[in-house]
Amino acid sequence: MASVAPEVEKKEEEEQVVNPWEVSAGKGGIDYDKLVDQFGCQRLDAPLIDRIARLTGRPPHRFLRRGLFFAHRDLNEILDIYEKGDKFYLYTGRGPSSEALHLGHLVPFMFTKYLQDAFKVPLVIQLTDDEKFLWKNLTVEESKRLARENAKDIIACGFDVERTFIFSDFNFVGGAFYENMVKVARCVTYNKVVGIFGFTPEDHIGKISFPPVQAVPSFPSSFPKHFSGNDQLRCLIPCAIDQDPYFRMTRDVAPRIGYQKPALIESRFFPALQVNKYAFSGGQDSVELHRKLGANLEVDVSIKYLNFFLEDDDELERIKKAYKEGRMLTGEVKQLLVTVLSEMVERHKRARARVTEEMVDAFMAVRPLPNMFG
Amino acid sequence: MASVAPEVEKKEEEEQVVNPWEVSAGKGGIDYDKLVDQFGCQRLDAPLIDRIARLTGRPPHRFLRRGLFFAHRDLNEILDIYEKGDKFYLYTGRGPSSEALHLGHLVPFMFTKYLQDAFKVPLVIQLTDDEKFLWKNLTVEESKRLARENAKDIIACGFDVERTFIFSDFNFVGGAFYENMVKVARCVTYNKVVGIFGFTPEDHIGKISFPPVQAVPSFPSSFPKHFSGNDQLRCLIPCAIDQDPYFRMTRDVAPRIGYQKPALIESRFFPALQVNKYAFSGGQDSVELHRKLGANLEVDVSIKYLNFFLEDDDELERIKKAYKEGRMLTGEVKQLLVTVLSEMVERHKRARARVTEEMVDAFMAVRPLPNMFG
Repeated sequence: MASVAPEVEKKEEEEQVVNPWEVSAGKGGIDYDKLVDQFGCQRLDAPLIDRIARLTGRPPHRFLRRGLFFAHRDLNEILDIYEKGDKFYLYTGRGPSSEALHLGHLVPFMFTKYLQDAFKVPLVIQLTDDEKFLWKNLTVEESKRLARENAKDIIACGFDVERTFIFSDFNFVGGAFYENMVKVARCVTYNKVVGIFGFTPEDHIGKISFPPVQAVPSFPSSFPKHFSGNDQLRCLIPCAIDQDPYFRMTRDVAPRIGYQKPALIESRFFPALQVNKYAFSGGQDSVELHRKLGANLEVDVSIKYLNFFLEDDDELERIKKAYKEGRMLTGEVKQLLVTVLSEMVERHKRARARVTEEMVDAFMAVRPLPNMFG
Repeated sequence: MASVAPEVEKKEEEEQVVNPWEVSAGKGGIDYDKLVDQFGCQRLDAPLIDRIARLTGRPPHRFLRRGLFFAHRDLNEILDIYEKGDKFYLYTGRGPSSEALHLGHLVPFMFTKYLQDAFKVPLVIQLTDDEKFLWKNLTVEESKRLARENAKDIIACGFDVERTFIFSDFNFVGGAFYENMVKVARCVTYNKVVGIFGFTPEDHIGKISFPPVQAVPSFPSSFPKHFSGNDQLRCLIPCAIDQDPYFRMTRDVAPRIGYQKPALIESRFFPALQVNKYAFSGGQDSVELHRKLGANLEVDVSIKYLNFFLEDDDELERIKKAYKEGRMLTGEVKQLLVTVLSEMVERHKRARARVTEEMVDAFMAVRPLPNMFG
């Protein structure tokens, strides 16, 4: 699973293409409305966000309030279940292709941590080292090593070891998990995966075999040690919207093999954060002009990122107002963003440094989760 | 793995088709010479059989002497290794689609037992319950149950538990075995498997994903507990020739992932044995005519089976001579065959009845094989 989309290519006048391995935007950038319609998911609207706040008794995460997570499938059903006092579990993942996770990679995990804390539910995190071996020029050993390194970054986000299982495919595939892979595979034709993922006949069969691997963590029976006796537990998947094709396929297959469809909560793409002097600014060309006309917030990258990372709603509003009215300069806003991000990055670095090999082993141990709904 | 071909269809005037799921003969029955040329394997000739006898210090098995196993790939290399005092291992398998194995199903296991005894080498036996789930209308549970039932028939053939590992894919796939599956899958395109196995775009991806599962028991690193430290151990696969496509693919991939190619020793097809009054006879239409003209041995089914199952070469020759010269009648030959087969079947039944669940567990336990070359 790629939790964050690859670099978004901008193509002139072409159709946007969004699948787990390619994201290319049309002329005006990604058209998310079009994507929601094309994929057939639902918009995550204000009443639904209010309902989350009401049910969890805490303010919705800023990634919800500010529209980073913007689409869903059957999230209302998950909330119905929760409202009745029943439970569900969370499933997310990452394709470990780099040594360390940057802030953009951490976004879905920060959000998943909020969901785990707010709903007090168990969580499985799949590290698709097999996927990265299949798609990138890596050895099995290197893919597994990256998976373990990435697990440290994920653990540093603060997940609760009592209700979190992190696994690498190379280490965990087998048993009930493999049985479910084979069950899913029997329900999906080659033509179907070509339609969903755009494979070609020259693609290797490793690629064609992979979709069931990412599908089956959606089913609690894939984790018999963890979810024993909870085979109908519903699953909610927080992920970037480029992963939707996997779960469209999964939702299509689920009822045919007697399982519940997973629900989804989906984010926009979040390109790598590189805040430097080249970041696109909505400020004017000269200080004089800026003082007079103010900034165009719609295109300003610093504002876009502050929107996602500055927790305080009032402070954000003050900054936006001052920048828009020309009272704040681009450099000042940028400096503010650098301060906010640096603080987050430093906090993450410190947390990651505290993650020991023993903690990784504990999260990755195949074991019952005694306190998973506690 | 289907150790014995499915019922051989006879088609008029059509090309013969031989792959793991379909065997259809042309007008004159299976043309094995053509098959050897088409597949690119070698004929198992008399000098090679003599060499096996010389190296093992025992007479070659009647399945070798009488041409049931008739083709090979790199068997000479395996014998070179053995002659130098090095070892190899055996790999065979079965797709568990029926409750009990009939005599035809047991042929490859009888032969494999001879190889194990003669060369004193370890053996892995794959029960492809996943394959049967994917191709037949079975549940996972039923496929696994059949695998375990079939293991009892296999154990009854007399394998040495000290050097034999029997496994079901549903139970064993994972870890190093799964890593090798993914390594193989990355080397084989969809076009390639279509060419080898004849898949169509409407086939489900379970079928397309399966060939690597049958490929990787050819590599000792798939069994780290059993063959630890013997990663370059050569593998010899006794099987029916319809399984050749899997191992052509495997031999093609092996050097690309740093592994040795498996060698093969391949048998003709062996249709289910149903000796009854409808079995095709080479005898004449009346006793009088038979006494005068004698039998046509070439087309006589009883003689064909006696050829494979009557151990005593001299007695077989006596029978064939008497039958050919009209001194023995079809009914008498048939009765002899029934006696020979009944004795084998009874012996097998008694042996199978002695196989306990504990013995099955012992053969299927994932463990080092301390005495595997002893």
